[in-house]
Amino acid sequence: MQITKASIITIGDELLIGQVIDTNSAWMAQVLNKAGITVSRRVAVGDEWNAIWEALDQEMESADIILLTGGLGPTADDITKPLLCEYFGGKLVLNQGVLNHVTYLFEKVYNRPMIERNIKQAEVPDVCTVLHNANGTAPGMWFEKDRKILVSLPGVPFEMKGLMTAEVIPALLKKFSLPVILHRTLITAGIGESFLAERIKEFENSLPASIRLAYLPNYGMVRLRLSATGFEREELTAAIESKFTELQDMLADVLITNQDQSMEEVIADLLRSGHKTLATAESCTGGYIAHLLTAMPGSSKYFLGGIVSYDNQVKQDLLEVTPETLYTEGAVSEATVRQMVQGALKSIKTDYALAVSGIMGPDGGSDEKPVGTVWVAVGNSREIITQRFRFRFERRRNIELTAVNALNLLRKFIIDNTVSTIN
Amino acid sequence: MQITKASIITIGDELLIGQVIDTNSAWMAQVLNKAGITVSRRVAVGDEWNAIWEALDQEMESADIILLTGGLGPTADDITKPLLCEYFGGKLVLNQGVLNHVTYLFEKVYNRPMIERNIKQAEVPDVCTVLHNANGTAPGMWFEKDRKILVSLPGVPFEMKGLMTAEVIPALLKKFSLPVILHRTLITAGIGESFLAERIKEFENSLPASIRLAYLPNYGMVRLRLSATGFEREELTAAIESKFTELQDMLADVLITNQDQSMEEVIADLLRSGHKTLATAESCTGGYIAHLLTAMPGSSKYFLGGIVSYDNQVKQDLLEVTPETLYTEGAVSEATVRQMVQGALKSIKTDYALAVSGIMGPDGGSDEKPVGTVWVAVGNSREIITQRFRFRFERRRNIELTAVNALNLLRKFIIDNTVSTIN
Repeated sequence: MQITKASIITIGDELLIGQVIDTNSAWMAQVLNKAGITVSRRVAVGDEWNAIWEALDQEMESADIILLTGGLGPTADDITKPLLCEYFGGKLVLNQGVLNHVTYLFEKVYNRPMIERNIKQAEVPDVCTVLHNANGTAPGMWFEKDRKILVSLPGVPFEMKGLMTAEVIPALLKKFSLPVILHRTLITAGIGESFLAERIKEFENSLPASIRLAYLPNYGMVRLRLSATGFEREELTAAIESKFTELQDMLADVLITNQDQSMEEVIADLLRSGHKTLATAESCTGGYIAHLLTAMPGSSKYFLGGIVSYDNQVKQDLLEVTPETLYTEGAVSEATVRQMVQGALKSIKTDYALAVSGIMGPDGGSDEKPVGTVWVAVGNSREIITQRFRFRFERRRNIELTAVNALNLLRKFIIDNTVSTIN
Repeated sequence: MQITKASIITIGDELLIGQVIDTNSAWMAQVLNKAGITVSRRVAVGDEWNAIWEALDQEMESADIILLTGGLGPTADDITKPLLCEYFGGKLVLNQGVLNHVTYLFEKVYNRPMIERNIKQAEVPDVCTVLHNANGTAPGMWFEKDRKILVSLPGVPFEMKGLMTAEVIPALLKKFSLPVILHRTLITAGIGESFLAERIKEFENSLPASIRLAYLPNYGMVRLRLSATGFEREELTAAIESKFTELQDMLADVLITNQDQSMEEVIADLLRSGHKTLATAESCTGGYIAHLLTAMPGSSKYFLGGIVSYDNQVKQDLLEVTPETLYTEGAVSEATVRQMVQGALKSIKTDYALAVSGIMGPDGGSDEKPVGTVWVAVGNSREIITQRFRFRFERRRNIELTAVNALNLLRKFIIDNTVSTIN
């Protein structure tokens, strides 16, 4: 099958000293993939003539489409545009349309006077097709050479995204007869990557050439992604769906979701669909679980609040954990997290509550309760379940693992609980 | 001056379909830079033999050091290791040291039985030096060819970081006569990058060739980093220190810290040195501020707890915000955050309290209070100060900006307060 390959080249010193994390490439890869274009390589180079030139030569070699981002800002202008001019054999000319747009932006939107640098932004190589950048002053530029296409875009994320969506993708869809690419992702928990692979070995071998399986392990969860590529959408959809169903059935016992979701998104769906509310009582995670839940838009619908009871006195005052329990059992104990859940349910008045208490390290461990020991409790007015964990990593990772595993325990509890109330 | 160049190659289809954002490369670039190694290119390719092989050829061309991450998990084993074997002309052999470590991990840490796949992780090319991966089963592998060095590392971030810090960087420092690179960083707040640049233009021009100045704007703060490169450590140290002192004096009024610290580390130092305690009352940041503070080891010394009052009823019940205030002023108001501070001081009994309430988006905005509107209050038993902010980004960024600016207001309050009590 004839596949259309794209390379993404990102220009900027900031990427090479690690000052900036490249989120543009990931977003571009997603939309290109959706469009049926296979991204074969991503390359980042500095703001340097030779480095950019060599990258262009190399990627023009291997790809049909080259997407170039960065190097177009008012302070970075000096290299990329002249280089593209020379590379495609043209000269810089003032583009009246772009100039009008830049003038408009400064007069009507920025309310700032234009300076020489801004006018220079309206200069484009006379050998490219100008792509209108509705969100900024630097236009996109479309070049063609030896039946290859190169598109130069500004690096500012929302400017790049606007150009990709409105101009680049539609133009590419016209230009190429592209295959359909379909993805289906599920997430498992509580089973290691290698065991999972062992369990679905035969399934994996049974996959047709058009469908690929990928493992993406993360925080004790493993995401499994099926990718199908072809030209017959219906046929392909049927094929991937039947394989995906097969996979789900095989992994029912460890399946968390059949969507490409984070654990907190799974929780959000469960709470929303059941019209239930949640409160958190966090000791060792120090608010991280509440943060994960509230980082999602609309979370105020189901997350009412939380208490970060870092100090034992706060556990007593705000969650009514008894001094006796703290004295006899300790702050990191089943009895304490049970009382924390009860306290949270009482003070925040929610359907469910989740509580965690543990030792994240590097200090605070003992022989009896080593660093990484965590007690989790989740419950409602009728029942509370608990689980003990032992994580063996450094502080930040222990916090992340505690959060994801606590949310997973909550997930199971909500599901069991919903089922039992239905029956 | 002879510079040592590195290329970073990241292997994984997930990067090419944009399912995962590559944070590894940025981190690696940072530590390589600190070590005096210049990262010249970053390349991402899929889990495909030819793609990896070609990338190796290309980067071996242009760089002295190639760092390869990914493609080493128990399920991905099948390509990278055999390829490296063939590329460097060796064969796979079982490494007893690695096998012992893998066995240990399964018996003592994972408490899971080992299977064939896991044992395969202990197979390494006989032409490489094995680097011990304390955090996982996939070892690092160090190859040398034509006076070039290639290091293969697992893609799991904390495994890669552990290997880089403990094994790779020290070995590279031994191998190459790298220049001394000294960095001195200070952080400013409340002044834009361009104004800052204007203010220190002459200072910047006065810098010797051996010292570079970098602007690292981030969340309304700007980090200024002086980097001195050379071979005479003493001379270089003297030069950068005198310039750094000069810079600090010029920026005294906007200086937050003369260390390369996060805002929460600055707060931690202030609280620790003054033997003071802190409580948080968060609405719109949903526990993120408490998380930032508690992510640091030893934070229980000064952070006693927090209340995430996402729902208005929680603001009333746990922070004693009056229904009248919520009705007349609204949850996002100066009056509300003032009462939140009072409530937090009362219920958590700390020296200082911080409160935030705002609209993080995408929904919930109004003409009067658009998305991004935030009220922050900080105070102690004697005084409360407030500040209104307006952020214009998407939800996650607005949350981060709120946190850092709230902590900065707290920082100023603690300093003013400490001074006034000393006088």
